[in-house]
Amino acid sequence: MTVLVPYPILLATVTGVFRERGMPPDRAAVAAEALCHGDLTGMSTHGLVNLTRLYLPLFDSGRTDPAADMAVIADLGASVLADARKALGLWSASQAMELAAARAARYGIGMVTLRGATHIGCAGHHAARAAAHGMVGLIVSNCGGQRIARPPGGREPMLGTNPLALACPAGDRPPFVLDMSTTVVPTGRVRAAARAGEEIPPGWLAADDGTPVTDPAAFDRGDGHLLWLGGAAETGAYKGFGLGLLVEVLAALVPGATTGPTSSVSQDDDIGVTALAFAPSALRSGFAEDASALFGAVVGALPVDPRKAVSYPGWHEGERARWRRAHGVPVPVELYEELRAVAPELREAG
Amino acid sequence: MTVLVPYPILLATVTGVFRERGMPPDRAAVAAEALCHGDLTGMSTHGLVNLTRLYLPLFDSGRTDPAADMAVIADLGASVLADARKALGLWSASQAMELAAARAARYGIGMVTLRGATHIGCAGHHAARAAAHGMVGLIVSNCGGQRIARPPGGREPMLGTNPLALACPAGDRPPFVLDMSTTVVPTGRVRAAARAGEEIPPGWLAADDGTPVTDPAAFDRGDGHLLWLGGAAETGAYKGFGLGLLVEVLAALVPGATTGPTSSVSQDDDIGVTALAFAPSALRSGFAEDASALFGAVVGALPVDPRKAVSYPGWHEGERARWRRAHGVPVPVELYEELRAVAPELREAG
Repeated sequence: MTVLVPYPILLATVTGVFRERGMPPDRAAVAAEALCHGDLTGMSTHGLVNLTRLYLPLFDSGRTDPAADMAVIADLGASVLADARKALGLWSASQAMELAAARAARYGIGMVTLRGATHIGCAGHHAARAAAHGMVGLIVSNCGGQRIARPPGGREPMLGTNPLALACPAGDRPPFVLDMSTTVVPTGRVRAAARAGEEIPPGWLAADDGTPVTDPAAFDRGDGHLLWLGGAAETGAYKGFGLGLLVEVLAALVPGATTGPTSSVSQDDDIGVTALAFAPSALRSGFAEDASALFGAVVGALPVDPRKAVSYPGWHEGERARWRRAHGVPVPVELYEELRAVAPELREAG
Repeated sequence: MTVLVPYPILLATVTGVFRERGMPPDRAAVAAEALCHGDLTGMSTHGLVNLTRLYLPLFDSGRTDPAADMAVIADLGASVLADARKALGLWSASQAMELAAARAARYGIGMVTLRGATHIGCAGHHAARAAAHGMVGLIVSNCGGQRIARPPGGREPMLGTNPLALACPAGDRPPFVLDMSTTVVPTGRVRAAARAGEEIPPGWLAADDGTPVTDPAAFDRGDGHLLWLGGAAETGAYKGFGLGLLVEVLAALVPGATTGPTSSVSQDDDIGVTALAFAPSALRSGFAEDASALFGAVVGALPVDPRKAVSYPGWHEGERARWRRAHGVPVPVELYEELRAVAPELREAG
């Protein structure tokens, strides 16, 4: 059972929750948009479900500071290093991308790299802010000191699921948004299957000896280990692991945030986030037309199954978001009740 | 049977071949180093084997110009857009990374983005030039108009194998060098197996209906299609395809090079290459120490099999290169004969 909540109501409700926790109104609105992006696009493992499970406990325990703003440590024009000072990542990652885009407009490329950040939610949402400016946005975040996945051949987890997202305009189509963990799936997908009592496909988890594990509960029991994109060594596990390290390098080593392998505590504090904006139109003409032609050719490709058109990452999410903005966002009843319990607006309305 | 060729002799020999084709001596030496990198590190599908099969035919047919230098189209300080004008990619990709590093020293980040480029060889070699400056290097190249891999659900190939490489210093250990195609394997691995008459593992090629194909010859017959990193949809094919598109966007859309989906001819001309250098030490102190600690923790990780130490991409290649620089590079006899047939130095010596 789901409740179809009008998008403006959902956004105002979550904004109200963040304001009640002490966030300034404009930042609370930006953070709410980032959180609702998950439910709007169908990436629901990174949406509202995390409000009471992840973000409100961060406020309650003082691990995020609602009033903090970034403190610039170094500014070289095209690049800025800053301390996010435990500000809510849902907001500060977008703030970083907006600043990167402003610098890119002048220098062709702009980078904002943060230490001291907190969980950013859907990485793709922040990357897409650059696409809205007609630019290409790339964002990476490590998981601070949190250790979730093992290196190939290693006995202990060492890195987080280390997300990476890139967004690019695609003409009048939804933007191309690649939004991925560098593990086969993020932990949220495994835990959602465990809660639903469903089996997971071979290739997500493996036992110590490499045998596929299809019981999602094995992950939290510690006898099913999350695999890197690529699965086994011969199908690219070292590439997935390498991409996890790429994110660790760009997101955390560059700004000097905590890294998984060197942290004393496996907890996602002092996260590193790096936002890059590329402004091709500052360097040449014709970028928007070329981008439209490229993604137009992809969706126009001859499909194997004539009933299933070819698409690109971000297309389905964009179409779904368009429908849901117009008609409402489906929210499971239990989640709606959770939201009502913490949201002043919905309490008064109910 | 292999010939153990001293590294300086091999380098001088290949430099001589490129000089004889009309490249200025310093550029010929840079290109030779990039080509020999494949054999030095063990990535032999991207080494000497390509001299007579790929690079010399490019000179012979006029698809690469030995005398061309890049022409700058736009320069915004932190970023440079240039036309490589068909210069040999083995050289111009390193030139691009060196220029990006020079800009990064001043701006914290530097980008050089090229259209009109040709095949760059091992992407990781060019990325590692930034690591030698104590920086992080990222390089991406599309395959011009060449179409090799199909989008998921598509009937026709649309993109190249679109390589991506990132390099980062690792203290006194070999640098971290992730050097990967965004397909499960590059085409060279499939064709090498076909030449050797060996089966390939399931997960590299698939038939139209998705069935795994283990006969490598099926690729050039057209009935075994190269898969994206991630393999099937439920284990991340859309991520691998998305990474292929990420490379197409950064490498080709940004500079305005030819793209696979929009090209009229499936040929790897007018390749796009983007080199990014990140200079953390321009923004903060302690980067080198933090990088050493990160990669030290990875190689110090507790292994599943006590006889097999955990490592990171680039470690084995770096150790192998160190040995071969000192003791010689093993070159298969047939390949040595091919080299002798085109190399003035070796002809005179023999």
